[in-house]
Amino acid sequence: MRDLLWQIFSNYESYAAKDVVINGWVRNNRDQKSFGFLMVNDGTHFNTVQVVYDENTKGFEETKKYRVGVAVEVKGKVVLTPELAQPFEIHASEVTLLGDCPETYPIQPKRHTREFLREVAHLRPRTNLFNAVFRIRSVAAMAIHTYFQERGYLYVHTPLITCADCEGSDQMFKITTLNMNDLELDENGKVDFSKDLFGKQAFITGSGQLHGETFAMAFSNIYTFGPTFRTENSNTKTHANEFWMIEPEMAFCDLNELMNIEEEMLKFVVKYVCDKCPAEIDFCDKFVQKGLKDKINNILTKDFVRISHHDVVDILLKANVKWEFKPSYEDDIAKEHEKYITEYFGGPVFITDWPKDIKAYYMKVNPDNKTVAAVDLVVPQAGELMGGSQREENLEKLLERMQEMHVDAKGIDWYLDTRRYGGCVHSGFGMGFERLIMYLTGVENIRDVIPFPRTPKNCEF
Amino acid sequence: MRDLLWQIFSNYESYAAKDVVINGWVRNNRDQKSFGFLMVNDGTHFNTVQVVYDENTKGFEETKKYRVGVAVEVKGKVVLTPELAQPFEIHASEVTLLGDCPETYPIQPKRHTREFLREVAHLRPRTNLFNAVFRIRSVAAMAIHTYFQERGYLYVHTPLITCADCEGSDQMFKITTLNMNDLELDENGKVDFSKDLFGKQAFITGSGQLHGETFAMAFSNIYTFGPTFRTENSNTKTHANEFWMIEPEMAFCDLNELMNIEEEMLKFVVKYVCDKCPAEIDFCDKFVQKGLKDKINNILTKDFVRISHHDVVDILLKANVKWEFKPSYEDDIAKEHEKYITEYFGGPVFITDWPKDIKAYYMKVNPDNKTVAAVDLVVPQAGELMGGSQREENLEKLLERMQEMHVDAKGIDWYLDTRRYGGCVHSGFGMGFERLIMYLTGVENIRDVIPFPRTPKNCEF
Repeated sequence: MRDLLWQIFSNYESYAAKDVVINGWVRNNRDQKSFGFLMVNDGTHFNTVQVVYDENTKGFEETKKYRVGVAVEVKGKVVLTPELAQPFEIHASEVTLLGDCPETYPIQPKRHTREFLREVAHLRPRTNLFNAVFRIRSVAAMAIHTYFQERGYLYVHTPLITCADCEGSDQMFKITTLNMNDLELDENGKVDFSKDLFGKQAFITGSGQLHGETFAMAFSNIYTFGPTFRTENSNTKTHANEFWMIEPEMAFCDLNELMNIEEEMLKFVVKYVCDKCPAEIDFCDKFVQKGLKDKINNILTKDFVRISHHDVVDILLKANVKWEFKPSYEDDIAKEHEKYITEYFGGPVFITDWPKDIKAYYMKVNPDNKTVAAVDLVVPQAGELMGGSQREENLEKLLERMQEMHVDAKGIDWYLDTRRYGGCVHSGFGMGFERLIMYLTGVENIRDVIPFPRTPKNCEF
Repeated sequence: MRDLLWQIFSNYESYAAKDVVINGWVRNNRDQKSFGFLMVNDGTHFNTVQVVYDENTKGFEETKKYRVGVAVEVKGKVVLTPELAQPFEIHASEVTLLGDCPETYPIQPKRHTREFLREVAHLRPRTNLFNAVFRIRSVAAMAIHTYFQERGYLYVHTPLITCADCEGSDQMFKITTLNMNDLELDENGKVDFSKDLFGKQAFITGSGQLHGETFAMAFSNIYTFGPTFRTENSNTKTHANEFWMIEPEMAFCDLNELMNIEEEMLKFVVKYVCDKCPAEIDFCDKFVQKGLKDKINNILTKDFVRISHHDVVDILLKANVKWEFKPSYEDDIAKEHEKYITEYFGGPVFITDWPKDIKAYYMKVNPDNKTVAAVDLVVPQAGELMGGSQREENLEKLLERMQEMHVDAKGIDWYLDTRRYGGCVHSGFGMGFERLIMYLTGVENIRDVIPFPRTPKNCEF
């Protein structure tokens, strides 16, 4: 049986003087004639291990020639090296080639630009940066599951395929099994979707919230965590057409309790990742975003500010700043405003009670009849991290809002049943998973936190 | 703060004589004139709690009238009842209506057929059966994440949108942002996909394996867990067009080690679910599939048999059975054969070394040049639960197989890089998540283990 580097690194003292077998890839090879150093990584731990080989090592002459990228098996002894930067090294008794690698290998031990690495997205996880980013992504996903499951939440797999057009089909991908080069038309000259797999036009949805609400009315506390699709034709650092979302939904929960949950969850996830990925966070702090660790610690120790949209606008209007977008009590908050307000308070800010006209139909209208019980969490540098609201639980008021906002009730009558049969105060939020990973790593482009990003005109691999 | 039933049920003795506040839904109300019993469930635990109310209960007269389905708040005291079937009840000091429910509520305290409940998929989680099934589904998902993360595997979100056509586009949904009623054509009279969001035709993929392999070549051990889509127009108990899959992929891992991992993982997940969901498993054993618990215990205690496809066919041919499909050394194994062989061995069976012509191009060809290093795990009653293989790591042999099987190498040149740059022996498997849930619950129709199932002509909700 081979040993994994994460096992050795997390308990290296107990491996002292022990024989181990490592399978991994060579990151660097420094041949010093009568001996040499092979830096080997098996990807189970962020750090590479230094393998020392010499004339007593079986396969010595071949080992000297191993290029960056080859797969090897190393047999040897763990030797503690408290005097060196790394806590231990392996003195090899034998090195065997498992898989060769030509000189043309694109990932060499030098600095590659992120733009270049996007062109070799299938190879970039072999670099330090992407090893760190995707490990943090994996551990953060586990943190989210752990938070909710330990608290009795139900993980629900809401469907991605939908025939309900209530989101506005322009924002959804259409899916079909029909031959698009030979579409049959109906008597009105329109595509005859009765021939399609579902017997009608189908889409890939951008949210599991409505389905999630029906499950919250049975299990009280539920969450979704899955991929989400948007058709937005927008080439920015923060937009992708395929990304992952978390959408918790809680019965018997009002806006205040919702904020408690959001704050507790975020702190839990951040702490979990810091505890499990210290080497990765250190790397990001040093090489991706200076001050990352301070930013993260700030989240853990601070109570998040809670302030209404109205009071935020007050602060913005009083500020001695020439705004590109004039702050308004009726309008959304621009990026420049988010930035100002998180710096003003020096940490994450819950902005509550938004003007109802710019928010969704299912949000609970406040007694002022101007604002809704919605909340966005904005954080320093990353901007909006979560968006949520108390849901309108009153059927008549909900129908009224749907009418005002031209939402067709027909396709989602099942959703309205949540208000007909034992409806209750309930709330939920959504968090874009990539936004969280960008926040945790300091990486600024969403293309660099998704294994194989999909953006307009870009669907390689 | 309200108390959740799962907290009370899992530690009810510490709640003795304590005041609690429960928010939940009425499952039944038995009014006995001067007192009554309200069965309340908040969905955080499988069991309902019996709430006793009488003339001293605030809201007594109203409580007598509460119908099935209403949402209530109950304030009261926990009273241990060792003499009764349930371990405790709540003596209510106050009951408050939170949300009413009309008599027309479809979920009444009586037996509903599963066919009827599919028509109210948004309400069926409020029944015992679907409460159990979806809790087991949620806990089993957590079990899978726990198994892999505790062992250092990387959870990777492989993309669902793809432009590579290597799976055969007939088996994939096409996705588009074009107006299907007004498609622009190119000079050859074909749809001009250069106008589509990705600049070419795009699909939703049915597997993350190829992308997963590229990550295994960086992290050694990885797994995917996400939704998957198939366009199969087939109305059976085991087919759905949208379902969830787990696809682990391990570098430096051969077929034998792969089977070790599959067996260990399955036992871990089964045990985890039994430990966390005893009430749900009991219910399924009693009301869904008699003998379920024996079947599950059998998995936990037995070493899985490992036998080649060839030797399985030997056994089938010797069996005194009139087969509908004649067993053959060159062919797949039919359902009737799977059934016979799992009964023959009295437990799960790994069938290895399948004829190469019926398996995928990326599987490693054995030295006999007739079979591949593939393995299917078949289990009593459920049939095939996992399918995996050692992958062909040799580039020349892989290209040869692709040519033989008419797989176009052009679109997946990036995938071939895993064999060019430090390739190594590696293996992986896929497990349909719904298959596992059907196995764990005894539920026979895949439509009853998916929250909102999508099958041909069926995309409601």
